[in-house]
Amino acid sequence: MNYRMIKYTLGWLMMFEAGFFLVPMITAVVYGEWHTLVAFAISALICLAIGSLCVYKKPEKTGIFAREGFVIVSLSWILLSIFGAIPFMLSGTTTNFIDALFETASGFTTTGSSIFREVESLPKAILMWRSFTHWVGGMGVLVFIMVFLPLGGGQNMHIMRAESPGPEVSKLVPKVKQTAFILYSIYFVMTFLQFIILLISGMGVFESINTAFATAGTGGFGVRNDSCASFSAAQQIIITVFMLLFSINFNSYYLILKLKLRDAINSEVKTFIVIVLVAIGIITLNIYQSYGSIGEALRHASFTVSSLISTTGFATEDFDMWPSLSKAVLVLIMFIGACAGSTGGGMKVSRIIIAFKGFLRELYTLIHPKQVKAITIDKRPVDREVVRSVNAYLACYALVFISSLMLITLDDFDLVTNFTAVTATINNIGPGLAIVGPTANFANFSNISKLVLTFDMIAGRLELFPMLILLSPATWKKA
Amino acid sequence: MNYRMIKYTLGWLMMFEAGFFLVPMITAVVYGEWHTLVAFAISALICLAIGSLCVYKKPEKTGIFAREGFVIVSLSWILLSIFGAIPFMLSGTTTNFIDALFETASGFTTTGSSIFREVESLPKAILMWRSFTHWVGGMGVLVFIMVFLPLGGGQNMHIMRAESPGPEVSKLVPKVKQTAFILYSIYFVMTFLQFIILLISGMGVFESINTAFATAGTGGFGVRNDSCASFSAAQQIIITVFMLLFSINFNSYYLILKLKLRDAINSEVKTFIVIVLVAIGIITLNIYQSYGSIGEALRHASFTVSSLISTTGFATEDFDMWPSLSKAVLVLIMFIGACAGSTGGGMKVSRIIIAFKGFLRELYTLIHPKQVKAITIDKRPVDREVVRSVNAYLACYALVFISSLMLITLDDFDLVTNFTAVTATINNIGPGLAIVGPTANFANFSNISKLVLTFDMIAGRLELFPMLILLSPATWKKA
Repeated sequence: MNYRMIKYTLGWLMMFEAGFFLVPMITAVVYGEWHTLVAFAISALICLAIGSLCVYKKPEKTGIFAREGFVIVSLSWILLSIFGAIPFMLSGTTTNFIDALFETASGFTTTGSSIFREVESLPKAILMWRSFTHWVGGMGVLVFIMVFLPLGGGQNMHIMRAESPGPEVSKLVPKVKQTAFILYSIYFVMTFLQFIILLISGMGVFESINTAFATAGTGGFGVRNDSCASFSAAQQIIITVFMLLFSINFNSYYLILKLKLRDAINSEVKTFIVIVLVAIGIITLNIYQSYGSIGEALRHASFTVSSLISTTGFATEDFDMWPSLSKAVLVLIMFIGACAGSTGGGMKVSRIIIAFKGFLRELYTLIHPKQVKAITIDKRPVDREVVRSVNAYLACYALVFISSLMLITLDDFDLVTNFTAVTATINNIGPGLAIVGPTANFANFSNISKLVLTFDMIAGRLELFPMLILLSPATWKKA
Repeated sequence: MNYRMIKYTLGWLMMFEAGFFLVPMITAVVYGEWHTLVAFAISALICLAIGSLCVYKKPEKTGIFAREGFVIVSLSWILLSIFGAIPFMLSGTTTNFIDALFETASGFTTTGSSIFREVESLPKAILMWRSFTHWVGGMGVLVFIMVFLPLGGGQNMHIMRAESPGPEVSKLVPKVKQTAFILYSIYFVMTFLQFIILLISGMGVFESINTAFATAGTGGFGVRNDSCASFSAAQQIIITVFMLLFSINFNSYYLILKLKLRDAINSEVKTFIVIVLVAIGIITLNIYQSYGSIGEALRHASFTVSSLISTTGFATEDFDMWPSLSKAVLVLIMFIGACAGSTGGGMKVSRIIIAFKGFLRELYTLIHPKQVKAITIDKRPVDREVVRSVNAYLACYALVFISSLMLITLDDFDLVTNFTAVTATINNIGPGLAIVGPTANFANFSNISKLVLTFDMIAGRLELFPMLILLSPATWKKA
């Protein structure tokens, strides 16, 4: 285990986190929130100090292996959340460090579950920090650092593989660094586009920036107590469209720019679109009667489906009040989640496709035992390692899910609350149902449950393996 | 597709079903229930008539392939349930055929979910028929027929594989028929043993027979409205022990008889025991306060855990009133289920072990990418086909579960009711929580939901693939 390189990379991470604090600091200056400014400035200095100590001397051996990649990524997200929580404490926004940690992890992991009972009274700089953590976490922090940092060597791929969502990571161009640069550029342009369109729709500058950040990262922290309910219908539609756009594999946008349209609209994207349309259709029909107008039912159904399948977690309506069928559909799409290689969470559409095709192949083999059939996606055979990894992911998912559920059940809330609290955090969505429904929050849980759910948010964002590898004794044994 | 052979086997099945009716007919004679006797006699004549027409001429070609095996097994269970439902209608016990079908399928599949709001007013012959269907279904109907019937050829193995629970089917002795005979003998002796012990405990003959049948098949239909609550503590403990005994792979008993103790207590059995003890421990501590005495809490916890993990579904207490943690543990063990090769349902402990080891291997491969590690159980490598089949089973399970959940959600009950109704039927347990809790029943569902849940019971009993193969177009295409 190359400990020096781990320390060095984490040091740079701290330096970058200090830099991230500049965004809320500028906000604090603009709004004259001097007390909050000081809180962020001290936090930045702490990160700078620790970071400098770690990056002072570059290690001689920069090579790392897969396990160092996983350890770096999981430790990075834990450290980011711990140090990112400091301003919440220093500004006096909360007095419970577990709450601050939960909120920050919820931000970086683009979950959007909150422990604040209301947000409109919070300092603008704190609101900006919450939204900005979504934006930073959406595309991956270490992938971002890789674009700027001369870490060198083959470690970039290890890190990218550990941090990027989906069963497979493909490079768009031969160099990992360049791939990361292209993806971040697309991300930046799309976020800016949403910001401009929201401005045109009549939303204020501050709200437009925050909403664009939270949508781009598919996070879901809002700046209003009612999330998106009081936005105009046009603004809700704009957000709906962008939530869906940020749920699609960013490789597709690159392929569109390269005019490879057929490759861009691959079977994962097609399946995603079909699931979204079917879910919107069912819910619209199911809630139509309570809204009276098909248009309004369609708008709320589209917004909610897009919000939950993209794992953003914004709300225009209290969908906990919808009929059972709609709620069941919503819980289902919470698990499916977005496309691989997007900023969205959940299991990812491609994993569902692979698991489903594995089942179909098995059925076929039982009917025709002597015929061998490989799993193909977009006419290309899926590597057996990938199929195996998807199955292991699902087993691991069940394991983490059930363990978390048992632990938070000690708080003695009802089954729906517990089940959807874990669903909402492990899939990085935000709200669940019942006590953690769209009009409620996570403040009622005990500190232990909040820590469990914080773990779930980070584990879910990193697709489980990095966090479990960090905790696995085999990682720390000498080879 | 060898249609003649399918018809011929199903014909014999009808003949056997006519024979099964003799048991309730004798009961009707003993209790002077002449009206019910006529109902069963007519049902038996119908089965005999149809059966004779089908078995009149033995087909020349008796050879069948795997797919015929699956089709025969799935059609058998559907026909058994349909014809077994006739006495409920003719005796006037119910006037809704869907209800009768649900009840009969629930019996044969050893589920024990009931549509009767109370059972003590039902004719004794009907109660006996319900319990007897559990006993017949527990070990598998076709495996039973195989012992007596000269079907010949390699088809026995195809049928045994399709009907027996668990990821692998192993023959105890070279001949399939002989294996079936040994397993049924063990089953018969153990059932008789429980009957005798219950008699000694002071239970009446009728109740002892019924309880032994329902325990042996891990079914759960009771003859009292309060299930097992009004039985004496000693009787409850006897039932607890036998529910656990019938959850263990019957191969183990054969190995014990052969004095191969180390092979008998394999890792599946060990894991099963650990899960049972941990679950009992957690629940006892969790419910201790409401019972006051550790002894009573332990007895109810043991009974309920044994009842649900064995997928029997008997109850001594309304566990829907227990704290959230206990309920969460109970729902979890409902999914785990019993050991492979037992009469119990659920996913089976061995499948959980294989899925978990698959996940551990993946984690190890990520940490040490260059080392290859095979999955082993009891120091023997697990065949890759078996691992693949377990993964496909889990994907299939999720698919059937979710589809059923969506369909029954149209009845607009709460999420806990719907979720546990599907859990209780697909795992062949019986009661769930909330509206389908241990003191309630399935009468409130619509006919469509009852049909969906009937499908789930049969699909769950046959471990999903046979029913899906029956519905798959590839099965019916010419090779």
